[in-house]
Amino acid sequence: MAVQTVATSGTPTVDLGPAAALSCRECGHRVPLGPVFACEECFGPLEIAYDFSAYDTEELRKRIEDGPANIWRYAPLLPVPADVADKPNINPGWTKLVKADNLARELGVTGGLYVKDDSGNPTHSFKDRVVAQALEAARAFGFTTLSCSSTGNLAGAVGAAAARAGLRSCVFIPHDLEQGKIVMAAVYGGELVGIEGNYDDVNRFCSELIGDPAGEGWGFVNVNLRPYYAEGSKTLAYEICEQLGWRLPDQIVVPIASGSQLTKIDKGLRELIELGLVEDRPYKIFGAQAEGCSPVSTAYKAGHDVVRPQKPNTIAKSLAIGNPADGPYVLDIARRTGGAVEDVTDEQVVAAIKLLARTEGIFAETAGGVTVGVTRKLIESGALDPAKTTVVLNTGDGLKTLDAVAGTGLTATIRPNLDSFREAGLA
Amino acid sequence: MAVQTVATSGTPTVDLGPAAALSCRECGHRVPLGPVFACEECFGPLEIAYDFSAYDTEELRKRIEDGPANIWRYAPLLPVPADVADKPNINPGWTKLVKADNLARELGVTGGLYVKDDSGNPTHSFKDRVVAQALEAARAFGFTTLSCSSTGNLAGAVGAAAARAGLRSCVFIPHDLEQGKIVMAAVYGGELVGIEGNYDDVNRFCSELIGDPAGEGWGFVNVNLRPYYAEGSKTLAYEICEQLGWRLPDQIVVPIASGSQLTKIDKGLRELIELGLVEDRPYKIFGAQAEGCSPVSTAYKAGHDVVRPQKPNTIAKSLAIGNPADGPYVLDIARRTGGAVEDVTDEQVVAAIKLLARTEGIFAETAGGVTVGVTRKLIESGALDPAKTTVVLNTGDGLKTLDAVAGTGLTATIRPNLDSFREAGLA
Repeated sequence: MAVQTVATSGTPTVDLGPAAALSCRECGHRVPLGPVFACEECFGPLEIAYDFSAYDTEELRKRIEDGPANIWRYAPLLPVPADVADKPNINPGWTKLVKADNLARELGVTGGLYVKDDSGNPTHSFKDRVVAQALEAARAFGFTTLSCSSTGNLAGAVGAAAARAGLRSCVFIPHDLEQGKIVMAAVYGGELVGIEGNYDDVNRFCSELIGDPAGEGWGFVNVNLRPYYAEGSKTLAYEICEQLGWRLPDQIVVPIASGSQLTKIDKGLRELIELGLVEDRPYKIFGAQAEGCSPVSTAYKAGHDVVRPQKPNTIAKSLAIGNPADGPYVLDIARRTGGAVEDVTDEQVVAAIKLLARTEGIFAETAGGVTVGVTRKLIESGALDPAKTTVVLNTGDGLKTLDAVAGTGLTATIRPNLDSFREAGLA
Repeated sequence: MAVQTVATSGTPTVDLGPAAALSCRECGHRVPLGPVFACEECFGPLEIAYDFSAYDTEELRKRIEDGPANIWRYAPLLPVPADVADKPNINPGWTKLVKADNLARELGVTGGLYVKDDSGNPTHSFKDRVVAQALEAARAFGFTTLSCSSTGNLAGAVGAAAARAGLRSCVFIPHDLEQGKIVMAAVYGGELVGIEGNYDDVNRFCSELIGDPAGEGWGFVNVNLRPYYAEGSKTLAYEICEQLGWRLPDQIVVPIASGSQLTKIDKGLRELIELGLVEDRPYKIFGAQAEGCSPVSTAYKAGHDVVRPQKPNTIAKSLAIGNPADGPYVLDIARRTGGAVEDVTDEQVVAAIKLLARTEGIFAETAGGVTVGVTRKLIESGALDPAKTTVVLNTGDGLKTLDAVAGTGLTATIRPNLDSFREAGLA
């Protein structure tokens, strides 16, 4: 597989805007832009290296503010061509940053509490952000099939983006997934292939396919396009700061699956500081996991630098990655910024989903229950300062995880008359 | 009930921005702003009468363009106070107008085809627009409980809006509704009352409650707050024109439930013309129904001015109003503008949902299947001109009507190896 993961020869020049090269996160080795994801020197993860040197801060700020109401307003800071907004894509982002005053009162937050609500994306999860990036990379590299392995949100995001772009899509899932999830992924009309095996088998098969001539022309959004894909999460950091009036939040609570999102949010915040778009002030990043899949918070609490894999068992299925690739980087960021990593039980996740819905009218996916639940726990423990500006991420939509709150129901049943209404104490 | 539906005495002055009075659609009789919905003279429906006389066109345009990315950018044209954007509300609107080039190719549209995708609203349907208006009226009249009868989208929209605003909500539904729909409405934590009876019984009970002292302080969004509520649909017309670059579309395809949305879209377009915000050119409005509940298209085709009620039997449940209150107005608008009213079978609805998802990556509710299906039918019949700019509304989200496409599934099942992959013809 090594020959597929590293750049072995000169790659034709591709136009991905300010993206200059791929750079190894571990050793700094640089290779040309291409569909590769691991360093040929040390097998570390490759990231996008940019050339932002030509930007004037105030010109850049104006260009962003005049841009479209989606992630492409940040095109000058992303690995995409300058005319990206004119190409068919699902154009996610610029989702609401909700000032959550009711929730703040319940949690005792006085410094300003905000929910960044990514359920407003086209397929109702933050995955649209990363897939939209991968799609542009796929186009740049001449791929004709967009693919991924998935058990949920990612399948829909890939299917929808490929449909809009006119690319073929082929998504691999365990064949025995719940019918509802199959429908949500199948409706976009691409190939949806059930693999006889579990999610690990699906992933193993995808790796095999990438290394085989049969996989030629295939862009796996989170494998051979991963360096591009991952950059999509930076846009969450950009939007939060711009929506706060070009200001860093003091504290931000981010869910952890692979850990990639948290590391890219940190990267996005640091870029804004370097570009002069926000004032350089300290910020703290907090990671949130479900207790049933908490390898990073376990390592954090034990003071470890490495993350020991776990077998997931939680209702927060979109976060259920037992061996998170970016776990060590998350630990590093939480410690460097003065944040923390915490986890909550499934019961606390459900309670937090209901709390957010009841206070702010936002129906979050289980991952949103994890971040809100962790926020409450961090305030109670004193790790999170209630007098500081705090942003909590909701990365998905409650309609996709209805089972988690299936116990919610009628508060009363009455006959259709006023006597029955009064008897029920509803007046 | 009459004493509750008409203004019987001087109403205290309320600040609802440019809204000046309520005016009868039938006889033009005016009454002060208040929680009333039927004319005291002729029992015709009351509408908002505005005073827009102070506006300078270009100042107004700039004020809108500088406004927030939600319906409150149009606050100067809505019955809301000027500081509405600062109050807690769910802030719907400014949803995507998607240039649907792939769908256009399939349908043979050459003049530009757009989908106005209201699944991007906070609770994923256009109902957020109307409920957000009703909420402001409820606040202005000092109501403390927000209420409605519902079998779906409206219940969630009311629950979410009341939660954000800190009002009590009490929603009435038939007690035997599907569990999924109950969960979607119950999660916001308000009262959710099951009525032992069908939807007609629920509505009858609500009317009784409005006429009783027990209903004091209750705002029923689509009954005693209906004149305000209905204005929310105007924002669809405003957004479409602004997103087209302050231009009227030539043709627009709108779903018909009560018919209110279509009549208010027409009202919104005429207001933009009168205000000078768009050039005065002809436009055609087309109405779309499901065959299983097509009282308006039946009347249209028969050349009638009145609408004969039907007993609904269609999968497009959000449009299943057998006796649409605004049916005659819809007939009038379709004929006056040179449009038409058409219907499609449930089978065509499902095919259209899949067509839209496959071509544009938009997963629509059944109501979106109705408009896309009707658009196809109108092009085939020649009623809709494919060389003209056409906008099709999608008013809801496919995640809420998964059952409609439950037959969609895996395109292949394979073992986790390359041989099986090749055998399936996927390479």
